[in-house]
Amino acid sequence: MQDHVTPRRVVILGGGFAGLFAARALRRSPVAVTVVDRRAHHLFQPLLYQCASGILSEGQIAQPLRGVLRRHHNVRCVLAEATDVDAGARLVHARRPGGGIVQLPYDDLIVAVGMRQSYFGHDEFAAHAPGMKTLDDALDIRRRIYRAFEMAETAANDRERQQWLTFALVGGGPTGVELAGQIREIAGHTLDREFQQIDSANARVLLFEGSDAVLGAFGPRLAHRAVRTLRHLGVELHLGTMVTDIDAHGLTVQDHDGRTTRFGARTVLWTAGVEAPPIAGALARATGAKQDRAGRILVEPDLTVPGHPEIRVTGDVMSLNRLPGLAEVAMQSGAYAGRSVRHVVEGRTKAPKPFKYVDLGSAAYIARGRAVVKAGPLHLSGLSGWLAWLFIHLAFLTGFRSRLGAVLSWSVAFATSSRRERAFILSDTDAPAGREPAPKAPPPPP
Amino acid sequence: MQDHVTPRRVVILGGGFAGLFAARALRRSPVAVTVVDRRAHHLFQPLLYQCASGILSEGQIAQPLRGVLRRHHNVRCVLAEATDVDAGARLVHARRPGGGIVQLPYDDLIVAVGMRQSYFGHDEFAAHAPGMKTLDDALDIRRRIYRAFEMAETAANDRERQQWLTFALVGGGPTGVELAGQIREIAGHTLDREFQQIDSANARVLLFEGSDAVLGAFGPRLAHRAVRTLRHLGVELHLGTMVTDIDAHGLTVQDHDGRTTRFGARTVLWTAGVEAPPIAGALARATGAKQDRAGRILVEPDLTVPGHPEIRVTGDVMSLNRLPGLAEVAMQSGAYAGRSVRHVVEGRTKAPKPFKYVDLGSAAYIARGRAVVKAGPLHLSGLSGWLAWLFIHLAFLTGFRSRLGAVLSWSVAFATSSRRERAFILSDTDAPAGREPAPKAPPPPP
Ligand SMILES: Cc1cc2nc3c(=O)[nH]c(=O)nc-3n(C[C@H](O)[C@H](O)[C@H](O)COP(=O)(O)OP(=O)(O)OC[C@H]3O[C@@H](n4cnc5c(N)ncnc54)[C@H](O)[C@@H]3O)c2cc1C
Ligand SMILES: Cc1cc2nc3c(=O)[nH]c(=O)nc-3n(C[C@H](O)[C@H](O)[C@H](O)COP(=O)(O)OP(=O)(O)OC[C@H]3O[C@@H](n4cnc5c(N)ncnc54)[C@H](O)[C@@H]3O)c2cc1C
Repeated sequence: MQDHVTPRRVVILGGGFAGLFAARALRRSPVAVTVVDRRAHHLFQPLLYQCASGILSEGQIAQPLRGVLRRHHNVRCVLAEATDVDAGARLVHARRPGGGIVQLPYDDLIVAVGMRQSYFGHDEFAAHAPGMKTLDDALDIRRRIYRAFEMAETAANDRERQQWLTFALVGGGPTGVELAGQIREIAGHTLDREFQQIDSANARVLLFEGSDAVLGAFGPRLAHRAVRTLRHLGVELHLGTMVTDIDAHGLTVQDHDGRTTRFGARTVLWTAGVEAPPIAGALARATGAKQDRAGRILVEPDLTVPGHPEIRVTGDVMSLNRLPGLAEVAMQSGAYAGRSVRHVVEGRTKAPKPFKYVDLGSAAYIARGRAVVKAGPLHLSGLSGWLAWLFIHLAFLTGFRSRLGAVLSWSVAFATSSRRERAFILSDTDAPAGREPAPKAPPPPP
Repeated sequence: MQDHVTPRRVVILGGGFAGLFAARALRRSPVAVTVVDRRAHHLFQPLLYQCASGILSEGQIAQPLRGVLRRHHNVRCVLAEATDVDAGARLVHARRPGGGIVQLPYDDLIVAVGMRQSYFGHDEFAAHAPGMKTLDDALDIRRRIYRAFEMAETAANDRERQQWLTFALVGGGPTGVELAGQIREIAGHTLDREFQQIDSANARVLLFEGSDAVLGAFGPRLAHRAVRTLRHLGVELHLGTMVTDIDAHGLTVQDHDGRTTRFGARTVLWTAGVEAPPIAGALARATGAKQDRAGRILVEPDLTVPGHPEIRVTGDVMSLNRLPGLAEVAMQSGAYAGRSVRHVVEGRTKAPKPFKYVDLGSAAYIARGRAVVKAGPLHLSGLSGWLAWLFIHLAFLTGFRSRLGAVLSWSVAFATSSRRERAFILSDTDAPAGREPAPKAPPPPP
């Protein structure tokens, strides 16, 4: 199998948890690995909400991919977005930012492109309600949260002020719950006594969820605890509601009985659903693979695409036994795919054992000193849940400096309620809205 | 003078060094202060280049203005851009981000809006060569620097690769010199062994300056030292050259003899000039005040606008005795303006002593362990200059946490050459360029 002149070429699409663990598993193999990602960084998504809420900086949760892989001498990194796969010619087409195509031939392909935010066919919601999947999203959310209080302070009337002081979160999974808790903490503690016209602590946080529970995946007991903690924090829960419309001034929801209600809110954040990125569809067309409703690729028990033993799909974008979209699943499946390639390279002929996910548990942070953790028979909440959460996140955060920095930032944020990363940049959408009276713009100086 | 029902209203335009020091000087006065800024943060511009080069995070150099002024109980902050002054009605018109006008009546007006980047009438250069005045600029420059190496790694041919590996800096003042040093450090140390197709250390850094010296303001001896240090770092100096054209692939310069030369460079950064923001022109029209060539407002020795004892101009945008645009000048003039208002409030009738700037010196960082410092008779360079630089910046960096964080970040960056804040977001301008073959974009998954 092994050619001593040109080593076997392994192309990994995506440098998230799955892609990174696949590359690591191949570290000592005589293969030439190419990791292709449309971003230059590896992103620690579980702490994204802390970047959005101003506790951590971008650099604390996003590390340059090629920095992380610096000591992997058989790996090269390519900043490009994979757009198509030619399964016959074994070629990936990718687009460089700013233009230009790169073509990457492979002997083995590991697909680890993750999932992106889905608006269930309502892409027009995206302009008013950013999702929470990328670093761009986190910075956009940061801007919207802090800007809202600024706008409330100078609001023209009560109605406008109330809209700026209302934050609506769509989706009651871990991310929605974490963001709800963060916004209440910012309103009640971080911004304490900084405003004169408004009392930031009066900010309303509404959480909308289609099912009848938040954190449903954590089981009824922890879900119940989460509801109690959120209510205690002052989050208004609207369970069993579907969002039917969103615009710049609020959203409309419908309950189980078909009754619709309108809520005024100038900040709406969307964490309700995910879908596969376009490259998953391209792969399905190129290989005849099936996709589930959200676009995930159905794989064999050894993570290969049916009929294509050289293509493996891992992480969030892989559909196998309804495994959840968790970092642990991504790491374990990525490592498995890397090891499988290694076995082939080493000339082992025995078929590999099917992939088996070992559930190490999951955790969600709600507020200072409060988190829920589920690990096998163990169900923790409150302070013990929070300590477990702390431990888990520290253990997995990539890179020593990030860990140290995160602990420092957490300690200060915890002790003082202050958040260092509150700077935000005003975007084009902050230009005056059409309806407002046009300001007299003076000409530039002579 | 003092009305015990409504306190005297002082409006400060700009929350930079001058505005902040004016507000501080009024802390114990029975006045109602309003600080208006078009950004929500106070920005420590002297360390902007460290944010651009990935050593410091946004939050380490930009602090929320209302956080900094939290304990000033007579101050309120307004996020809005001042667009006009009605000197008769004593009213400032300001535009809120996202729309809406606020009108701010004043008894005293302190103008501290600073200067912005100037392209000397060539505003079309801005798209290809960002300036270095705001946080947006720093993040844009950070993206361009790190992206350039990524693009060089996947370049289609040698010519393109060489263009991505060439960085052109226009302007040989402290900011241009600091950026030149930073890029050479990034190329030679930070990115060491991260790339496979390119040797990042080969990156060319060109510095263009119209006059015959870099850091001219530091005097011939230090300027000469700076040239030596820059040459030692591998920066290619082009003194006595004027930039006549910039596009996406490079720039054209002209020397004293009228000879033009074209340089290929996909990254061009502009630090060559400043001009007053539009509000300065509006103020001049409203008051009949004169402006200098760059648009600064000419003021009386007590910093008031001629004929308007209630309007004071401070900091970079004030024109008085050719004082330089330095943080110290801004702080001292801002504090002076605040004190002058306090004297009026306190009913003192004696005319205030004219403003007198006490020169505490200035400093510029060139590279690790190398800086130049001029303080009266003291001219330091090399390591002693660097230690003085360190001390000065620590003393003035706003807020204890920023100082601690900055020292930590500098220590790590110094000891390991690594930079934590390398994450960048790809912008709209990273969309494929028109000339490139259009990629086949697959339709979204079903
Ligand atoms: C806000 C948030 C919080 C979370 N919290 C937790 C938690 O607490 N615990 C937990 O276990 N899990 C959590 N998760 C889920 C966890 O982050 C994911 O399961 C995990 O990131 C999946 O890893 P992945 O490698 O499959 O995909 P990702 O980590 O999403 O990585 C995919 C990579 O592929 C790249 N990519 C995408 N398309 C292309 C393309 N066409 N070409 C090239 N590159 C491409 C992307 O840029 C990205 O780098 C959270 C997720 C989010 C969004
Ligand atoms: C990259 C860089 C490095 C520097 N390094 C040094 C150094 O090492 N040492 C040194 O002494 N000096 C240095 N300087 C100069 C120093 O930063 C300035 O002299 C100082 O910031 C001037 O203070 P200021 O308050 O007048 O203006 P600024 O600090 O520029 O503040 C002006 C404020 O006004 C706001 N504003 C502008 N227009 C409006 C409007 N229409 N309405 C409302 N708000 C408005 C802006 O948002 C800003 O917050 C440096 C400058 C730069 C750009």
